[in-house]
Amino acid sequence: MSGNTLGKLFCVTSFGESHGPGIGCVVDGCPPGLPLATEDIQFELDRRKPGTSRHVTQRRESDTVEILSGVFEGRTTGTPIALLIRNEDQRSKDYGEIANSFRPGHADYTYWQKYGIRDYRGGGRSSARETAVRVAAGAIAKKWLHQQYGTVIRAYLAQLGPIVVPFKAWEGVNENPFFSPDPDKIAELEAYMDELRKEGNSVGARINVVAENVPVGLGEPVYDRLDADIAYALMSINAVKGVEIGAGFACVAQKGTEHRDELTPEGFLSNHAGGVLGGISSGQDVTASIAIKPTSSIRLPGRSIDLAGQPAEVVTHGRHDPCVGIRATPIAEAMLAIVLMDHALRQRAQNADVRCPTPVIPGKVNR
Amino acid sequence: MSGNTLGKLFCVTSFGESHGPGIGCVVDGCPPGLPLATEDIQFELDRRKPGTSRHVTQRRESDTVEILSGVFEGRTTGTPIALLIRNEDQRSKDYGEIANSFRPGHADYTYWQKYGIRDYRGGGRSSARETAVRVAAGAIAKKWLHQQYGTVIRAYLAQLGPIVVPFKAWEGVNENPFFSPDPDKIAELEAYMDELRKEGNSVGARINVVAENVPVGLGEPVYDRLDADIAYALMSINAVKGVEIGAGFACVAQKGTEHRDELTPEGFLSNHAGGVLGGISSGQDVTASIAIKPTSSIRLPGRSIDLAGQPAEVVTHGRHDPCVGIRATPIAEAMLAIVLMDHALRQRAQNADVRCPTPVIPGKVNR
Amino acid sequence: MSGNTLGKLFCVTSFGESHGPGIGCVVDGCPPGLPLATEDIQFELDRRKPGTSRHVTQRRESDTVEILSGVFEGRTTGTPIALLIRNEDQRSKDYGEIANSFRPGHADYTYWQKYGIRDYRGGGRSSARETAVRVAAGAIAKKWLHQQYGTVIRAYLAQLGPIVVPFKAWEGVNENPFFSPDPDKIAELEAYMDELRKEGNSVGARINVVAENVPVGLGEPVYDRLDADIAYALMSINAVKGVEIGAGFACVAQKGTEHRDELTPEGFLSNHAGGVLGGISSGQDVTASIAIKPTSSIRLPGRSIDLAGQPAEVVTHGRHDPCVGIRATPIAEAMLAIVLMDHALRQRAQNADVRCPTPVIPGKVNR
Amino acid sequence: MSGNTLGKLFCVTSFGESHGPGIGCVVDGCPPGLPLATEDIQFELDRRKPGTSRHVTQRRESDTVEILSGVFEGRTTGTPIALLIRNEDQRSKDYGEIANSFRPGHADYTYWQKYGIRDYRGGGRSSARETAVRVAAGAIAKKWLHQQYGTVIRAYLAQLGPIVVPFKAWEGVNENPFFSPDPDKIAELEAYMDELRKEGNSVGARINVVAENVPVGLGEPVYDRLDADIAYALMSINAVKGVEIGAGFACVAQKGTEHRDELTPEGFLSNHAGGVLGGISSGQDVTASIAIKPTSSIRLPGRSIDLAGQPAEVVTHGRHDPCVGIRATPIAEAMLAIVLMDHALRQRAQNADVRCPTPVIPGKVNR
Repeated sequence: MSGNTLGKLFCVTSFGESHGPGIGCVVDGCPPGLPLATEDIQFELDRRKPGTSRHVTQRRESDTVEILSGVFEGRTTGTPIALLIRNEDQRSKDYGEIANSFRPGHADYTYWQKYGIRDYRGGGRSSARETAVRVAAGAIAKKWLHQQYGTVIRAYLAQLGPIVVPFKAWEGVNENPFFSPDPDKIAELEAYMDELRKEGNSVGARINVVAENVPVGLGEPVYDRLDADIAYALMSINAVKGVEIGAGFACVAQKGTEHRDELTPEGFLSNHAGGVLGGISSGQDVTASIAIKPTSSIRLPGRSIDLAGQPAEVVTHGRHDPCVGIRATPIAEAMLAIVLMDHALRQRAQNADVRCPTPVIPGKVNR
Repeated sequence: MSGNTLGKLFCVTSFGESHGPGIGCVVDGCPPGLPLATEDIQFELDRRKPGTSRHVTQRRESDTVEILSGVFEGRTTGTPIALLIRNEDQRSKDYGEIANSFRPGHADYTYWQKYGIRDYRGGGRSSARETAVRVAAGAIAKKWLHQQYGTVIRAYLAQLGPIVVPFKAWEGVNENPFFSPDPDKIAELEAYMDELRKEGNSVGARINVVAENVPVGLGEPVYDRLDADIAYALMSINAVKGVEIGAGFACVAQKGTEHRDELTPEGFLSNHAGGVLGGISSGQDVTASIAIKPTSSIRLPGRSIDLAGQPAEVVTHGRHDPCVGIRATPIAEAMLAIVLMDHALRQRAQNADVRCPTPVIPGKVNR
Repeated sequence: MSGNTLGKLFCVTSFGESHGPGIGCVVDGCPPGLPLATEDIQFELDRRKPGTSRHVTQRRESDTVEILSGVFEGRTTGTPIALLIRNEDQRSKDYGEIANSFRPGHADYTYWQKYGIRDYRGGGRSSARETAVRVAAGAIAKKWLHQQYGTVIRAYLAQLGPIVVPFKAWEGVNENPFFSPDPDKIAELEAYMDELRKEGNSVGARINVVAENVPVGLGEPVYDRLDADIAYALMSINAVKGVEIGAGFACVAQKGTEHRDELTPEGFLSNHAGGVLGGISSGQDVTASIAIKPTSSIRLPGRSIDLAGQPAEVVTHGRHDPCVGIRATPIAEAMLAIVLMDHALRQRAQNADVRCPTPVIPGKVNR
Repeated sequence: MSGNTLGKLFCVTSFGESHGPGIGCVVDGCPPGLPLATEDIQFELDRRKPGTSRHVTQRRESDTVEILSGVFEGRTTGTPIALLIRNEDQRSKDYGEIANSFRPGHADYTYWQKYGIRDYRGGGRSSARETAVRVAAGAIAKKWLHQQYGTVIRAYLAQLGPIVVPFKAWEGVNENPFFSPDPDKIAELEAYMDELRKEGNSVGARINVVAENVPVGLGEPVYDRLDADIAYALMSINAVKGVEIGAGFACVAQKGTEHRDELTPEGFLSNHAGGVLGGISSGQDVTASIAIKPTSSIRLPGRSIDLAGQPAEVVTHGRHDPCVGIRATPIAEAMLAIVLMDHALRQRAQNADVRCPTPVIPGKVNR
């Protein structure tokens, strides 16, 4: 595979550039019989789409998805599901000036070095616009996992710049522009973002993602462990620089007696493992956390070089998110859903002749 | 693939259990003509092998590797290189009692749920013993990368439990049992480990790994990004719970002006990106950091259940590392080497007709 | 992968049904810098498209291709190239009656058994319409191979039902509706086809395909041999029941002294091997031959069963090719091109540090 | 993957050279719980092994297999099964003279061109010795398929040089050195082979392979069709130059009314399709036929060139099969078994929520 396909049995092959005719994907491996309509996908796309508040990019894209194949009379047929989203609001002229120089901290330089040619308009293939495709494909995975196992996958903003956002409740997460799980923090977040926008700067964020009702037994050690594939999928999201499963980096300072999740007949007593033991899901909630860097596309000038290797000062005009982390919330959910569905299919191939010998033990969630 | 193969063009297929006849792998995709001898591999295995100090497991394994194929008259032939390490010191009787119950925090439970059968002796396939295979395969990747590009890959202990170990120098890292980059910390680490061993407990660790002289242009966006594949590879190491690239989680609180690495004709001015921009290597050092949990195999009793789902108290006798993080140092190097070699081969397939238009810009290393 | 992706480094992921919104594919892995325009692809599509003579299906499809991504300012960028062909002339009502029964010899029955749901209109995914996608992707491979190595890939009709068509010359093959390499046979073929159409029956065919100027060294033994991958690719074309490389089944009655292709400093003296030795290209012409069955979609009634398992008589109305083999000519070329390009990329990954020690020996072609 | 791995979910990764320490493979993806002993594998190896009659190579190899992993207390555990066969009877000195020249019709030349280095002893990696590995892995697939579905896979010699061998009965096929399904032909075959050996020449053969009790629904159109994967697997066997499914090349001269297999509620009325429709198994017997070329390793001198490109006369001394087709019989069975098991696992991933709506229709076998 050449790098634009995700998954082994539930395969998402992505295409498209920020300012080309459109973006989309082919989803191959969805089992037949799943009820699927455009609305199922559009619902998730609308959660990610730009222009929904003053805190995100003002590019106006309806992100309308068309299902080109794989669905017949409202149900999936087992054949590839192709999805197409036409690009609409392209102000390519904004990018004329970056055609000849490299935004610091951006993929401009590495695409140029790797390919010797690049569609510089809006970042081309490296644009976060591609993540709409992930959200679209993830919508199918989410629906299938919920139908099959009752799995629910949700994410929230856990930190924005210096502001730590404690988890209070899932209710309301989708009703504020920050995916904040604490309604009391919204005013502070708004004030911070307004200030940041005025300054012309950007900032990082942390997103936590949780899958509930995950079947036990998903993951193929020793390399395609569930946590390894989650790390791959989450790290592949634009701007992500770190991934944690369960306790994550906190485990460095933990002792074995603290970290190990003890079991009782009633269930696990803690979930430092984040729902994965030995690379295999334990039936507890799968929990992960990601760090998203501040975008490099900012109005404040930075030192760089041009195509000729000469010094250049770069200012990004275009329309950008001052905190790309905010809109990463539905993307993280989508990526986790795709990985879980892929592993659920892989496990179905293996265990048709093996019965789980004991009922799945419910576990306490450490969120 | 069923989960025991790593890589797309440089493929490592691993096999073996802790207390079976042996462990090993097939390395497929190594280009022909690389000088390769048993000693090249044995050197790296000896860095990881058990029983080298009182701070690691006392299992005595010579970890002697045999090359079964793929090398002729001292050079690789382009055909699969099979490596075999026979198991020697197996005290399987130590594990009789865990045959019927699950060590908390261990893969015992999930393997049982997934497969309905498990080789419980020493953890079977989930044992860290499998990582010897990774080190063996990684030795080939390291040698090839060095021969082709002068790439050097090294790792060190950055934290052990509460003790942060600052990077001082590469010299001496391999001359102490902790892979400490600061000789002045060794006494403190020894004292801490002696105490821990007496207590019968275990502790976590953080390892930093760095690749120097990495060619620019490695990585296949948008999914098989270099950083995504590194995250996958490092998270697949036993006990790893978190992976960072470059600034990692520190980027959450950074602003764009701080995080972006500015460029000048003389090179990058910083390396918060960890050598990867847009999923593609920039020519700067590739830097990653991993969190390793405290092992669950400890002498202190823990609550668990048995195969019948009844309460059980579990104490692990066997011989285990009180801090598995220590021996993870050569493993992290090996995994990074395998990923880099795989992507180097992938890039060679793509860019034979494309010349890098500017010389690679050397970058400042933030370690 | 879930079965709709072809290739390891040059990957074609196909989608679409005969009577859905459209068909298309994502081509991932084309190196950057290849000049590519819609016309390059349209040229090959027009060679395959329906309705061009009275001897093929009368469905009227312009088969107009749109490039959705991966090309910037007339050159490939190294990112995925998505191609879309909208369906136009869909007479779905013709298929109402086969919704409830299975055409004998057709995929109706197996799709139903496999998926439990099928888009029966025009055969849905199993329709030969999908082969337009292969021709489109193959056009890119053909162009790249020609640009890089001067490789030329051509096919011709070698037999139609009882009529054997001897190879006379490449000139004229594309100027007659049968891809006949012998202009003197055209009248006989026309008369036979007119008779067949009147009868309402169909017939089989044999197509030969030849690649000239193939680099030496392509093929990855022992499983992904060049000939194995060619067999896979050609057998995956709808209606193909047999594949030969070089002498093919004639080798059963040959002796070693006859079959082996002797070498002299001036080149090979024969080409029974069909350009592949030990799974690796020898630099001689790669030659293959395929058998295409008579289509099952015919006007003459056949015995079958309906969804309830009851006897049913099936007559296919729709518009079909009486000899699907004719239009298979450009498809066979496309499939061979895709396989050769994939292996050329794979070989480039391997041999950058190995020089071919002797010049490629030109070989005599046995066609 | 780099070419030595077969299968997507049931993966066989092969290694080893003819005159190295040994050959073997890693079988990854076998579901847990299958009873498996060395004897199961040894039984099949003994059917293929050299030196069993005067009509095959006189190399003496016990082909003793060792299971290195993946089996615990007599059952598979779901982890990789590594198999090792040590080489014993190596007369490498026989090959000294071919170190400097290329046997015509052999892989010597292409390995040299591809890799720039080759283990020339006994053909190295290109030796038919590698096929023992396939037979070993196939033994596992055969056992699993039989346990799960009652599938039986058998092959026989259908033609040897000019002698066509009609199918009479399965009984006795394994009791004669030719795998002849007609006991009355054995004397003729013996006389022919004795003559051939005396002459110092070799000859081709045709092998037919049949799988009975194949579940309906196996195969992943449009590329990973069951027949495409069978063609790949069979063409990858050393010396195979042609593959047919069902009627094969006979379909070229057939009309649609003849070829299509009509259905009745009692079953199919014929099996020209060879058990595959639209790339998916129909529940009928899967039938395939392969053409095997006469080996190039013969005593009669042939024209060739040496490493310097100068003319050379080549005579092969070593010990070789005058008809490699004979021993290909168990290999063809193994390859078909591996493909069927791989597709059975893939189908299990897809259809857990889909019930086959009608009972499988038994079909008449055209053998």
